[in-house]
Amino acid sequence: MQRAAALLRRGCGPRTPGPWGRNQSSAAAEASAVLNVRPERSRRERILTLESMNPQVKAVEYAVRGPIVLKAGEIELELQRVSVRRASGSGAVGSPACALFPQVMALCTYPNLLDSPSFPEDAKKRARRILQACGGNSLGSYSASQGVNCIREDVAAYITRRDGGVPADPDNIYLTTGASDGISTILKILVSGGGKSRTGVLIPIPQYPLYSAVISELDAIQVNYYLDEENCWALNVNELRRAVKEAKDHCDPKVLCIINPGNPTGQVQSRKCIEDVIHFAWEEKLFLLADEVYQDNVYSPDCRFHSFKKVLYEMGPEYSSNVELASFHSTSKGYMGECGYRGGYMEVINLHPEIKGQLVKLLSVRLCPPVSGQAAMDIVVNPPVPGEESFEQFSREKESVLGNLAKKAKLTEDLFNQVPGIHCNPLQGAMYAFPRIFLPAKAVEAAQAHQMAPDMFYCMKLLEETGICVVPGSGFGQREGTYHFRMTILPPVEKLKTVLQKVKDFHINFLEKYA
Amino acid sequence: MQRAAALLRRGCGPRTPGPWGRNQSSAAAEASAVLNVRPERSRRERILTLESMNPQVKAVEYAVRGPIVLKAGEIELELQRVSVRRASGSGAVGSPACALFPQVMALCTYPNLLDSPSFPEDAKKRARRILQACGGNSLGSYSASQGVNCIREDVAAYITRRDGGVPADPDNIYLTTGASDGISTILKILVSGGGKSRTGVLIPIPQYPLYSAVISELDAIQVNYYLDEENCWALNVNELRRAVKEAKDHCDPKVLCIINPGNPTGQVQSRKCIEDVIHFAWEEKLFLLADEVYQDNVYSPDCRFHSFKKVLYEMGPEYSSNVELASFHSTSKGYMGECGYRGGYMEVINLHPEIKGQLVKLLSVRLCPPVSGQAAMDIVVNPPVPGEESFEQFSREKESVLGNLAKKAKLTEDLFNQVPGIHCNPLQGAMYAFPRIFLPAKAVEAAQAHQMAPDMFYCMKLLEETGICVVPGSGFGQREGTYHFRMTILPPVEKLKTVLQKVKDFHINFLEKYA
Repeated sequence: MQRAAALLRRGCGPRTPGPWGRNQSSAAAEASAVLNVRPERSRRERILTLESMNPQVKAVEYAVRGPIVLKAGEIELELQRVSVRRASGSGAVGSPACALFPQVMALCTYPNLLDSPSFPEDAKKRARRILQACGGNSLGSYSASQGVNCIREDVAAYITRRDGGVPADPDNIYLTTGASDGISTILKILVSGGGKSRTGVLIPIPQYPLYSAVISELDAIQVNYYLDEENCWALNVNELRRAVKEAKDHCDPKVLCIINPGNPTGQVQSRKCIEDVIHFAWEEKLFLLADEVYQDNVYSPDCRFHSFKKVLYEMGPEYSSNVELASFHSTSKGYMGECGYRGGYMEVINLHPEIKGQLVKLLSVRLCPPVSGQAAMDIVVNPPVPGEESFEQFSREKESVLGNLAKKAKLTEDLFNQVPGIHCNPLQGAMYAFPRIFLPAKAVEAAQAHQMAPDMFYCMKLLEETGICVVPGSGFGQREGTYHFRMTILPPVEKLKTVLQKVKDFHINFLEKYA
Repeated sequence: MQRAAALLRRGCGPRTPGPWGRNQSSAAAEASAVLNVRPERSRRERILTLESMNPQVKAVEYAVRGPIVLKAGEIELELQRVSVRRASGSGAVGSPACALFPQVMALCTYPNLLDSPSFPEDAKKRARRILQACGGNSLGSYSASQGVNCIREDVAAYITRRDGGVPADPDNIYLTTGASDGISTILKILVSGGGKSRTGVLIPIPQYPLYSAVISELDAIQVNYYLDEENCWALNVNELRRAVKEAKDHCDPKVLCIINPGNPTGQVQSRKCIEDVIHFAWEEKLFLLADEVYQDNVYSPDCRFHSFKKVLYEMGPEYSSNVELASFHSTSKGYMGECGYRGGYMEVINLHPEIKGQLVKLLSVRLCPPVSGQAAMDIVVNPPVPGEESFEQFSREKESVLGNLAKKAKLTEDLFNQVPGIHCNPLQGAMYAFPRIFLPAKAVEAAQAHQMAPDMFYCMKLLEETGICVVPGSGFGQREGTYHFRMTILPPVEKLKTVLQKVKDFHINFLEKYA
């Protein structure tokens, strides 16, 4: 009784009617403190506990790996957008990498602004095109579950241009809530069977933890293929063959996931390698998922992005009419980095017409992807062309963002490779360094004493001693006995240099301490 | 070879480089036509087919029920937002129900506008508050997976005001991608066990199909409890008791879903009934899900919305410290109807601290809900107060939207009840009529001859003969041998009158035809 009364007295904001008037946030802290003690006192056993919860969801833990990764994750994610902006050269916080983006978004959000002289004509043109296709000419209406038609047409036109004329069909484009949503939706449809015929999903190691998490949620079988660190994290088809062969003993390998450019490993796949992978998928009857969200983030002068879709078509009708492929893109990366709008698309190739119906049905359960995110996707795939008012500024902005990232990619590789006990492959693309760290036996023992993975122990010390937050390789997967961490290259050049110098000093002390 | 070349020649937009220059959309149509024929010609068996796909996803079909429901669904969804606007009295397409909303959204989207004199001060105040809490002061950054802190604080303050001072803790608020996302996320965590110990989820019949769909996706056990149509669709605890008792033979009933105000049935639960339900949940150890997205949509003068959270606390510490509850709200309904932004929140009560960790972990796999949707949620829970510049206009707009809906609710009930063979309960709340239609035996036979549910047959005829698209009751579930349809009351009054008159004429002809 008293406890409940006490609880009731807590947590009421200043705007609360009634007898109470305490500060919201401090009260919140107290309230949750109370919540944490109470169970041990009077309450009865809860219905939903770690023991009673969905074991597949609980298992996701092993993929995401505890507080530091979550924390690091959040910090990184915040950094990502902020720093893409800074990298764009415009120091002002709040100012985006590309001025056209918020202009079009604002016009779509508040159409009264279409009469304002302070917006460029091509921004208005884009906004009008998007709005005329939206229910009630508003981002506030639901769209069709597959996404707004004219935006799917713009995505198809973008893909066709990107792939040098290989046709894209708007009917094969599904707008999604970021790329993650598309990836988990298609996997949800693909997973089936029980026991030895349970669907096996091949993923690269190291991987982006979304994959292991969704595989775990769906109770599918994760089949690891290892990227070749000695060979700049290249994908080796013999390794794929090994993985599939071994997997067949305990599951039905049916899906092959590729991340190109790689996250966290940053490699860019060669055209030859993509051909080999497609041929292998055709041979082994594997459904291909191509995660291409970093397609605009290629830095090495000797690397180029090739889409799986394009290579598939260039390999001829036997492949282009048989291999089933879903590829993914998003508004969160590239040179705009508009992550918060959760825009993305999925293009499907050779998907069975009946499955397309199933896909739309499944998507319609969640009504539609955020329409503002769909509009954001339209701006990303529909950049200014020569002759448009915004073209020159946009080109400068784009060049500046990508130029800075390329500079920082090289800088990071070079600095890491000067440190004894650190080896870093070239950052050919994406937004991360994933250096290998060689840890002395004593450090590994110390980690075991703390019941931590050795690289988790290393990252925890780094966080404690320098405040720098990086993600242990064990959160992404790595070869037994090797240790890594993932660090974003998004901070501005000067800040990045400081960070790298701090990591270097920390690493050298760490080696001495555990020599 | 030729076919592939032909395919390549097709589907290339005017902006395509290379030798082709056909119109995108017509080409798209052709291309997909080609896609549809090809399989029957040369291609080999696909990997992903109706036979090989995830059977749980396939089973969702039975809940959503075929093309007319999907079609009707989409049309309804479009109507919803457009018509909330029209109902607001402002005829201009593109102008929202509430002027403040797009102003704040535009300011958040394009902060340069904060210097513009053409925005009211309280709109700027709201935008600044939201932006200062966003990474990089931008909607374009990822937020924490649980949502932006100050928006969760505003939601908690809103709930505290709504519930007359019963405290809400921002730490218990999770911002979601519409309410659907919150409902499916918490269900995903709740479902466990195999065979007879598989989790049973109690849902009302008639229900909103999201529930049956998610239950099917998760391979949980759907446990139906029937609302009492003879008693204005009231929830009867004896019926709950019956459902749980019978369910215990084949599953573990662990979750009780309530929709209040009801969708599609529009009833508003009495305080007494909510108390009975909470007591029953406490008694039977059921986890409560309270879908309260229509909490602002109550029309009957003798009805009031009571939140489960408030009643739970008023029932005293034994309940308020033991009953586990998740309740849901969204930006899509109420008097703003901003569905496209996919904003929503979930408040959890008595959730185990360890489960909160699991919840954040699961949410972090999808990174974060759309930040623009989070901002939209903030505007919905943070309306103008007396003394603020926008207060008077906002109050007029709100009154107008809700007043019109109340008028149309009464109008619809009265008109339907004048039609022989139609009985319609009072539309106490929400946005739909769900009249019962009494179909002659000959019509039922005709439907069976067409292998259709009788009300599906009825709705199909209605669509064919009048162009009016309503959703058959069989899409929501109904007592064996009873037939219904769901119709939105969102069209403007005059249009609604015409629609109702057409339905009346159609129904009378239908009765004659199958007498």
